[in-house]
Amino acid sequence: MKRLDTGSAEFEAEFSSLLNTRETESARVDAPVSAILAAVREKGDEAVCDYTARFDRLELTPGHMRITGEEITAAVAKVPAEQLEALNFAASRIERFHRAQLPQDMSFTDEDGLTLGQRWTALDAVGLYVPGGKAAYPSSVLMNALPARVAGVPRLAMCVPTPGGVLSPLVLAAAERAGVDEIYRIGGAQAVGALAFGTKTIAPVDRIVGPGNAYVAEAKRQVFGHVGIDSIAGPSEVVVVADAKNDPRLVALDLLAQAEHDELAQSILITNDTGFADRVAAAVEHELKTLSRAAIASASWRDFGAVIVVAGWSEAASLINRIAPEHLEIMLDDPAALFAQVRHAGAAFLGRFCPEAVGDYVGGPNHVLPTSRTARFASGLSVYDFLKRTTFIEGDRKALQRVGPAGVVLAKAEGLEAHALSISARLETGHDTE
Amino acid sequence: MKRLDTGSAEFEAEFSSLLNTRETESARVDAPVSAILAAVREKGDEAVCDYTARFDRLELTPGHMRITGEEITAAVAKVPAEQLEALNFAASRIERFHRAQLPQDMSFTDEDGLTLGQRWTALDAVGLYVPGGKAAYPSSVLMNALPARVAGVPRLAMCVPTPGGVLSPLVLAAAERAGVDEIYRIGGAQAVGALAFGTKTIAPVDRIVGPGNAYVAEAKRQVFGHVGIDSIAGPSEVVVVADAKNDPRLVALDLLAQAEHDELAQSILITNDTGFADRVAAAVEHELKTLSRAAIASASWRDFGAVIVVAGWSEAASLINRIAPEHLEIMLDDPAALFAQVRHAGAAFLGRFCPEAVGDYVGGPNHVLPTSRTARFASGLSVYDFLKRTTFIEGDRKALQRVGPAGVVLAKAEGLEAHALSISARLETGHDTE
Repeated sequence: MKRLDTGSAEFEAEFSSLLNTRETESARVDAPVSAILAAVREKGDEAVCDYTARFDRLELTPGHMRITGEEITAAVAKVPAEQLEALNFAASRIERFHRAQLPQDMSFTDEDGLTLGQRWTALDAVGLYVPGGKAAYPSSVLMNALPARVAGVPRLAMCVPTPGGVLSPLVLAAAERAGVDEIYRIGGAQAVGALAFGTKTIAPVDRIVGPGNAYVAEAKRQVFGHVGIDSIAGPSEVVVVADAKNDPRLVALDLLAQAEHDELAQSILITNDTGFADRVAAAVEHELKTLSRAAIASASWRDFGAVIVVAGWSEAASLINRIAPEHLEIMLDDPAALFAQVRHAGAAFLGRFCPEAVGDYVGGPNHVLPTSRTARFASGLSVYDFLKRTTFIEGDRKALQRVGPAGVVLAKAEGLEAHALSISARLETGHDTE
Repeated sequence: MKRLDTGSAEFEAEFSSLLNTRETESARVDAPVSAILAAVREKGDEAVCDYTARFDRLELTPGHMRITGEEITAAVAKVPAEQLEALNFAASRIERFHRAQLPQDMSFTDEDGLTLGQRWTALDAVGLYVPGGKAAYPSSVLMNALPARVAGVPRLAMCVPTPGGVLSPLVLAAAERAGVDEIYRIGGAQAVGALAFGTKTIAPVDRIVGPGNAYVAEAKRQVFGHVGIDSIAGPSEVVVVADAKNDPRLVALDLLAQAEHDELAQSILITNDTGFADRVAAAVEHELKTLSRAAIASASWRDFGAVIVVAGWSEAASLINRIAPEHLEIMLDDPAALFAQVRHAGAAFLGRFCPEAVGDYVGGPNHVLPTSRTARFASGLSVYDFLKRTTFIEGDRKALQRVGPAGVVLAKAEGLEAHALSISARLETGHDTE
């Protein structure tokens, strides 16, 4: 963990280095991924089954790729009632927030007589990638699938690798609750290829979302353009802004909740009180002694953790905007005052009783958020990811008479004669069928 | 040009081949682009000037990279008044449509006592790439820069290569009208690198938009993640739906307006009348005799043009949705009836007096649109490309008491102990500072 003080002469250099420490070279898997995608595109199901046998130690036939309704029912029956209830509670809250997010169509007629507007429509089919094994988070299934459902996507196909054939009951329960239509027990670049290009068994989708390992990320990169993808997530981070009125242990737990995700995660405390900074740092060390994921959390805290002491909250705002954190907690008496100065953050958690973990599970807004400073230009997953806009223009001869001539001038200036003619010939023609 | 009839036995095969003919392998320029980006990142201005001398035959010093206010004023003075007026007219209409597109912030408090919402903020800085020479379209400068301005982006930096030092007066006039803050006479992958990583002379931006050649497209691909990019445009297309009441020449001109862009452009007529189809095909041949860009337009029409005869308009709707065209014209008595059935299209032009060229210049909606069937999942450029959302959650102890327990259950189920503790410790603590 690094201690920084905005009053120090070295602050600027230290802060810059803090912003850049986690820039990592992703593994170069272009060539193997490109071979897998080409094989899936050419041989379809056969290639998918071959790779699944090789990578997931699972012998599959095309007819057995899809997880059946009976398997899902049997798996869901194993989930403790308490967990199913929590899942349903979370799902309902996530649905409601995303329904509130749905945009409205828009149109207006202007004084030149043209009617202009835009109309939102859902994608036809979305593919949801869910990692296998320990990285299979049921909460992520809800967060990826429900916005697509709320947006009105009629077909949701999910791929989840089941190494050795083992299914995750809670993941299947989440998929069922979220209304996923098809679930396939395949993973890796071969699953991304199957979703993008389609096989005899799996119809192609229009967009693929969901996290995955380096192979999955590279496969998404390579199929992008053929289908849409979500952004490729990097290591994630939290900034906690807290004054000395807070319980240091609660702040420490919030920092560790981020750190326990991943050795590359970054947790940063910004405070105005040096003594409080010390108490939080001590509390982190104390909690680490008993935490089940202490190995991961302490590596993250050691390598990327930071405590920054500022002279005041507007200084904090300017640091937050430079960090553009994925998660921002503001544990102050008046969190709104500081939040009003924040321009770049994926999601904000305001007040002393709103830890980031609330947003991970039950808050309602999406937990798939822009990581690694990309909140400067990107947003969290939302219904917008599963909708697209068609703009439209409607006009009669009179409207064309008003706006057309300027179009002719510009088309000619750009050397596009047919463009100019398509307007001017309409203005000249006596053949008015309107 | 291909003739297809939905009544023919070969229709399905022919239509599928029509959808896929333009899938092209993009040139492999990964390696040279990666070298250029690395050099710019390491050596900054020096590398940018070196590449500019090599690729644009232009000797530059860092101090001379930026086009000065005097140069812009001198260039704009050369633009004919008629063109300046047309540019201003177009700009005002584009601004108004994009202002109407601005989204509203949203928040609500639910019955559990949590306040949830999302807030839109503009990017800090946007880079606009404008191709040099003949591909430098002033209308594209307006369409890329104005939505950023309307969104509230405070800094807009533009790069335009000036091979041999030649400036395009109308492009500079468009940049001035659109409120571009800085213009640099550089291009290619080196310009993309300078915008993404920054140099001593050019501060880095957060997102890069605008069309470019294969090097520019690959450079954008490689800097993606470090900054945002717009989608990489492929060859573009139009579908014109027209009945026999239309003047065949007008329909032919609309098809050719698309075809004159590029040999890879695709123009498709859908009609319910075989005789009308013949008359349009004849009119295309006739217009091609005098068109200034006949070489390009006839190659496009020959290789990718198509005329499809359908039995009725709902059949047309289903073909349109499979094509997902960038541009769609509906030249029917009741265009709205067919448009209501269209789920996938970048932009629609409704009625007999609304050629697509209106949308290219003066309509108002953006002319940067999803090409090559990507309207299945993508939308045109908009104010949304220059805004991002921060979601937020605010709650007190009481709200946490209601939503927290389900979060604890899910965090434990996912094995994330610090997540669970960050909620449960708050519920247990007697230390209530609220």
